[in-house]
Amino acid sequence: MKLSNAVPLYLEDFHIGDYFETASVVMTKEDIISFATHFDPQHFHLDQETAKDSLFNGLAASGWHTNGVSMRLIVQSGLNIINGVVGLGVDEVRWPKPVRPDDSIYVRGEILDVIPSNSKPQWGVVKIRWQTFNQNHEVVASMLPSLWVKRRDVV
Amino acid sequence: MKLSNAVPLYLEDFHIGDYFETASVVMTKEDIISFATHFDPQHFHLDQETAKDSLFNGLAASGWHTNGVSMRLIVQSGLNIINGVVGLGVDEVRWPKPVRPDDSIYVRGEILDVIPSNSKPQWGVVKIRWQTFNQNHEVVASMLPSLWVKRRDVV
Repeated sequence: MKLSNAVPLYLEDFHIGDYFETASVVMTKEDIISFATHFDPQHFHLDQETAKDSLFNGLAASGWHTNGVSMRLIVQSGLNIINGVVGLGVDEVRWPKPVRPDDSIYVRGEILDVIPSNSKPQWGVVKIRWQTFNQNHEVVASMLPSLWVKRRDVV
Repeated sequence: MKLSNAVPLYLEDFHIGDYFETASVVMTKEDIISFATHFDPQHFHLDQETAKDSLFNGLAASGWHTNGVSMRLIVQSGLNIINGVVGLGVDEVRWPKPVRPDDSIYVRGEILDVIPSNSKPQWGVVKIRWQTFNQNHEVVASMLPSLWVKRRDVV
């Protein structure tokens, strides 16, 4: 079932197989260079000319940039969780294809597991497969986050 | 052995147990809020007052911000690799403690494995344990990246 973004979700609202999809956003050349300047200053993320001779065969967004923009998309148009989108950790981060200037990206997430906490009965963990796609619906980033999610008050 | 940052490294220069350590940098409140505004707009990363009532009990940097700053530190003062610092993927990303305004962070990396590629003989994979510490030498982020590293030309 598609998860609603209209009301804040609690642990009980998540079920295996549920999914969400975010809006999309264009990664401009200026955005790519600006992020790289601050957080990943390597020539294949900074300079269109010298990037041609790199492993990436042209300017490519830092993978951390793709992840950051994906996070913003999830927060703004993907997951509405009562206590916010809080990751305990993330496994298997991969960047199978580079993100190029003017690529438009969006995130699709699928619920893999819902695990009530034994030690903290008001909380639980939601495991997600998060995939970021480009405009050709090719995966440009994927990861398996574990989110910390509040349960409804038990009466 | 401590890895030199003076000359670019090839796959053959890495050995299990080698390590590197970066310079440190202060995470200001302004930096934390600016990153969150662009990439993780949630109140516990944006607003000192309302963050007090959140899971974080006060303003905390986005985990993606800590990762991004750590990446910059590694690129600028940690690892000098001939083809750049290029991750094939990252496993087991964890954020065991929040990063607070004015925390000073640095990264220490340890080489866990060095694996020549079978399919691409000019390349190989270096597996690293990357840990980001605060000024009290507490781990605030950790992960296991796999880097793609060029071999020396075999003659």
